[in-house]
This record gives sequence, C-alpha cells and structure tokens, in this order.
Amino acid sequence: MAERKPEMTKKGKVVLASGTFDLLHLGHVKYLEEAKKAGGKSAELIVIVAKDRTVEKRKGRKPVMPEEQRRALVESLKVVDRAILGYEAFDMSQVIDEIKPDVIAVGYDQDKIEEKVRKTVAEKGLGIQVIKVQKFRKTELNSSLKIKKKVTELYKG
Amino acid sequence: MAERKPEMTKKGKVVLASGTFDLLHLGHVKYLEEAKKAGGKSAELIVIVAKDRTVEKRKGRKPVMPEEQRRALVESLKVVDRAILGYEAFDMSQVIDEIKPDVIAVGYDQDKIEEKVRKTVAEKGLGIQVIKVQKFRKTELNSSLKIKKKVTELYKG
Repeated sequence: MAERKPEMTKKGKVVLASGTFDLLHLGHVKYLEEAKKAGGKSAELIVIVAKDRTVEKRKGRKPVMPEEQRRALVESLKVVDRAILGYEAFDMSQVIDEIKPDVIAVGYDQDKIEEKVRKTVAEKGLGIQVIKVQKFRKTELNSSLKIKKKVTELYKG
Repeated sequence: MAERKPEMTKKGKVVLASGTFDLLHLGHVKYLEEAKKAGGKSAELIVIVAKDRTVEKRKGRKPVMPEEQRRALVESLKVVDRAILGYEAFDMSQVIDEIKPDVIAVGYDQDKIEEKVRKTVAEKGLGIQVIKVQKFRKTELNSSLKIKKKVTELYKG
C-alpha cells in the first residue's frame, strides 16, 4: 500500500506587513494577525518597521520610540516571525526583491503605501497578492495618534 | 536493555509576574523575559495585569490604555503564556492560592509589591521563590512615565 508522505518541507506563504508601530497598541496586533491570516496555514509574517528618518520625512516628526526599540518590540509579538528595519527611502522594489513575499498586507491607513506597493507589484509582473486590512473597530484607542493625544491631555501642564 | 522514558509529563515551573503595562515598551518585555528565565526550562509565565481602578487608587491616575487592551497586548507577547486582570484590591494571597506559582518575579520599581509578596509568602509558609528583576538599562525609554513625558513634550501646545 502506497503511503503518502506528509509534505514536511512545504513552506507556508511569506506575508509582508509594514508600519511605524510607535506606541504599540492592540490595533497594531490585530492588523498583524489579519495580515498573517491572509497567508493561510503556516504562513510566515515578516514586518518592515519604518526607520526614524523615514517617519520624520513622511510625517514631519520623529516617532516617540527609537527605531530599534520599535523593531524589537514588534518582533517580541507572538504573531511576528521576523521584524526588520526598513530602508531609508522605503524602497518597495528592494524590499520585494529581498523578502520575496507571496502576500503584501497594507493597513487601513496606508493608502500611500498601498499605491506604491500596487504600482511596484504591477511593474515587476509578479504574482504577489496585495491585501488591505480593515481597521480594528472594537476599541477607541486604536491609533498611535489618539494615544498621544490622550497622554497629552492627561499629562499636560 | 532498560530504556529511560523521557519525562514528557514533567511540567515546568509556573512564574508569576505583574504590572500595569501602560504604553508597552521594551523594558516591560525584558522584565518578562527575565522573569520567565528564573523559572528555568519550559517555565510557564503568567502575568497579572493591574485593573484600571487598582492603578487609579495606587497612583491617583487612570492608565492611558484601558485594562482589557493592556491585558490583551501583554498576552500577545511571545514570552507570555497567559495574562489575566488582577483583582480589585490586588489581593496577593488570593492570587497565590489561585495561580500556585513556583516563582514570583517583581520588577525593579515594584518595592511595595515586593514587600507585600514577601510578607504573604512568609505567612503562608510556602516554598515560593521571590526574585527581583533588575532594570533594563540599555535604553533611555524604559519607563512608561518617560514615554508619557516625551509624548507630552512633542505634542503639547
């Protein structure tokens, strides 16, 4: 009787997510969990954490937490397999070439990144799936900006 | 030849850690990692997250993040096996009776909790090991208070 070997070597899909993750909150975790789910069973989740300089250029302000601490904190989450700092200019083409993701998950508030990702994926002619994760609505404090505002309210003066 | 069975059923030590974990940072993760290490191989780490009312009573101010979000975020860390909300009055005796820890790890800034824990453990006559985890010094932003101050500085006005 022929026995079917279990496909032990079959690797899961590689999912790529990205963000600043300044003042980590449950909304971040939910985004990452949804991203990983999109890769199906035994997916591997790699997260690109934006460098301080990239954030400063994009938002005009440095993050509260320094980049290496943001990266290490993201990597300490159960859902994350690996977290790496982004490139200075967030070069999507370079990220795709190096990580070779099967799926790229963008957050609800990452419209500019989504545009860039879809453009690069189309240009490269790769079969990369791009998915958009919806906002986690169960909570009020689901954005770093809201948290910063609340901290400022509570601690000003 | 007698073969020695591997002790598959031998469970690791249960380590108990506690805190508020408002605005989660790398110092929290390092404290939890050190706490778990104190339980040796295959230790299980259970974390008591302080309720909003407990924090308010103790510090005169509610935390920025609501209790259930703080709990869920702590439980989403790789190092944590289970995170549960504390009792209203942080009744150490009740916690010990329910969790039955082998080790209780207190943080560098938890002098009052340490005192309470040591007193309760002595009273109960239990062989619970109490350890104090040192402050994580590699980083500047290793306390929630410092983070709040930096946020306020950056966002005031």
